[in-house]
Amino acid sequence: MTNFEETKKQFILPKGLIYLDGNSLGPMPKNVPSEINTFLHEEWSNLLINGWNDAEWMFQPENLGNKISRIIGAEDNSVVVGETLSVRVFQALSSAIKDVGKRKIILTDSGNFPSDLYMAQGLVHLLNDQLEIRICAPEEVLDSLSDEIAVLMLTDVDYRTGRRHDISVISKIAKDNGIVTIWDLAHSAGALNLNLKEWDIDYAVGCTYKYLNAGPGSPAFIYVNPKKINEVKPSLMGWLGHQKPFEFLHKYVPGKGINRMKIGTPPVLANAALAASLKIWDTVNMSELRSKSIDLSERLISGLQKNCPNLKLASPINAEDRGSQVSFYFEHGYPAMQAIIEKGVIGDFRSPNIMRFGITPLYISKEDIDLAIEVISNVIQNSLWDRPKYKKQKFVT
Amino acid sequence: MTNFEETKKQFILPKGLIYLDGNSLGPMPKNVPSEINTFLHEEWSNLLINGWNDAEWMFQPENLGNKISRIIGAEDNSVVVGETLSVRVFQALSSAIKDVGKRKIILTDSGNFPSDLYMAQGLVHLLNDQLEIRICAPEEVLDSLSDEIAVLMLTDVDYRTGRRHDISVISKIAKDNGIVTIWDLAHSAGALNLNLKEWDIDYAVGCTYKYLNAGPGSPAFIYVNPKKINEVKPSLMGWLGHQKPFEFLHKYVPGKGINRMKIGTPPVLANAALAASLKIWDTVNMSELRSKSIDLSERLISGLQKNCPNLKLASPINAEDRGSQVSFYFEHGYPAMQAIIEKGVIGDFRSPNIMRFGITPLYISKEDIDLAIEVISNVIQNSLWDRPKYKKQKFVT
Repeated sequence: MTNFEETKKQFILPKGLIYLDGNSLGPMPKNVPSEINTFLHEEWSNLLINGWNDAEWMFQPENLGNKISRIIGAEDNSVVVGETLSVRVFQALSSAIKDVGKRKIILTDSGNFPSDLYMAQGLVHLLNDQLEIRICAPEEVLDSLSDEIAVLMLTDVDYRTGRRHDISVISKIAKDNGIVTIWDLAHSAGALNLNLKEWDIDYAVGCTYKYLNAGPGSPAFIYVNPKKINEVKPSLMGWLGHQKPFEFLHKYVPGKGINRMKIGTPPVLANAALAASLKIWDTVNMSELRSKSIDLSERLISGLQKNCPNLKLASPINAEDRGSQVSFYFEHGYPAMQAIIEKGVIGDFRSPNIMRFGITPLYISKEDIDLAIEVISNVIQNSLWDRPKYKKQKFVT
Repeated sequence: MTNFEETKKQFILPKGLIYLDGNSLGPMPKNVPSEINTFLHEEWSNLLINGWNDAEWMFQPENLGNKISRIIGAEDNSVVVGETLSVRVFQALSSAIKDVGKRKIILTDSGNFPSDLYMAQGLVHLLNDQLEIRICAPEEVLDSLSDEIAVLMLTDVDYRTGRRHDISVISKIAKDNGIVTIWDLAHSAGALNLNLKEWDIDYAVGCTYKYLNAGPGSPAFIYVNPKKINEVKPSLMGWLGHQKPFEFLHKYVPGKGINRMKIGTPPVLANAALAASLKIWDTVNMSELRSKSIDLSERLISGLQKNCPNLKLASPINAEDRGSQVSFYFEHGYPAMQAIIEKGVIGDFRSPNIMRFGITPLYISKEDIDLAIEVISNVIQNSLWDRPKYKKQKFVT
């Protein structure tokens, strides 16, 4: 049994604060500073260049990838870490479209995070509009799958509403239609009980700064199905993805398996924080995490629906159709969220009218949710947002 | 006048060690741990999501870029930081080739670092071989410039021999031939007296873990000529390069100026180390740095040429034709370098027979060079490498 009282103790959170924004940026795990100090004082400053061998910096992409593969239910040696999520999206897409014959359409939905759409647009631009991007509504995805679609690229959990796609069902139908699948797990890795091993998808990408708590801008990851990886010829031919990087050959030869998806030099300092944050997951059962996430989400929804009839649930009412966040539509969402934040409950706002609360069972308890309900209800019931200081919209992350 | 005794004090180096490998990985500046502690304890764990605004994490790419632009003699607001060097090479190249009309040839030389060649090969693969990569010898570059060349992509300093291209002369002739220029400054940023402002090149990329001392795998940078940037339509369309990233629009619109070259979320922890390391450069005059680099290099060359006639200089004899490293051919280079390292002088080896010594004036003094000459000469003169333990080749970075 996962001991969530114990995992909660492993995070630093300011006293009195209830942090419901871990779906955007996870808080700092307590073991991060010591892991970083080891890197600074025992490795970088002491081993210098020898750290690449002696501290195994060079093998971080696959070693950390194997930690993440457990969290997303993937096979060993199917994940590598490094670069940013945008680059990983481009990497997956630019490799995928080499494997689609004459098909030209990249299908995605309007619930995808804009960065994924932008990277796809960049690829289309680069290829002189030989590809086409088709954006359907989330509920039209299944009906849009056909044999003219080359690649299906989706984020499973909608960053605004928390609406969740069923990766398993969609991927199966995509596969039956000969479509290459790419899933962006930014809002589900470390939040849902994923099972990539069974779902037989082609590519997945994700970030580590949300539910995986490795710090702002921490490295991204990419998964490629092991049944497929040895046929993948990467379009981002990274030095470290070469079969023999230290022979300094002029010609690229892809490395074995998932190694070919490595690109540039591993970000060793950032990886130290990631290694620390991933240790917490060793003790976590993902099915129990998901159960707790659902319990907390239901508790928040029923509490707020009871107290605040003017908040309209933006997330699906059925728990299985949600990721690990709860969103409400509210016309005064921006100033209301400012007032709530000022009272110590940190959620966030997404234009034009969505209030988001992230549910992160590793460090959020029932008691936290009850307190959050009290604070949020107080702001909403008493129109506490309705003061000049909350009106001015700041730059919103 | 730059006070090099003072800059030397700003680095942590193990006692008794002479580190001539800063051209591969710079040592840790003393101010890095405190800058990182500030980030961990005052920013990430305390501000949480608000750090994006309150600690200005979001503006790191351009703020740090402006620090680097001074070091490479570039205009303000012409550089952004983030991602890896391989990705920046791809970004420059994939943008450049959209601006070359019907020309199809990417010209580079055999002295370029293999990762740059690999990223170019990936792009050619992605574009279904619509482009061609032509690799000439370094001394043939000028003669290879013609109106059939689309893009010239070079690293100015050869990673093995230290042979330096004259960016100014080559770029001028390239420009006269209508060729887009991309320079990889990995081995010259922080080492040479670069003057991008005057040289009128198109793109430059570089890393920060060599002469800029920001730690293994620290973020890369990209420069685009301000006269050109507003016509550049990026092929890597990053969320943060969008004109209005926080409006979450479906369609990419490039940001103003160099901002459009931002890609993914800034690596904030890694940027803390980079910010610390860049502070040292505030006090450094690049022309004085270059003079000192030449003095130290000449001293090492003349000392070793006098003592060790069996070492053959691989670097150009003329100081102006060298970067900030000195290399020798030696048939027993690998075991000899192992023996030298064991005696506390850290250089490195590049297959098949090159011994490399990096010259980094920020923390290397004349006295260090004299001691290095003594140690190296002792190993070479007495065939100290000729022992079984030095023979076995390890994984070499």
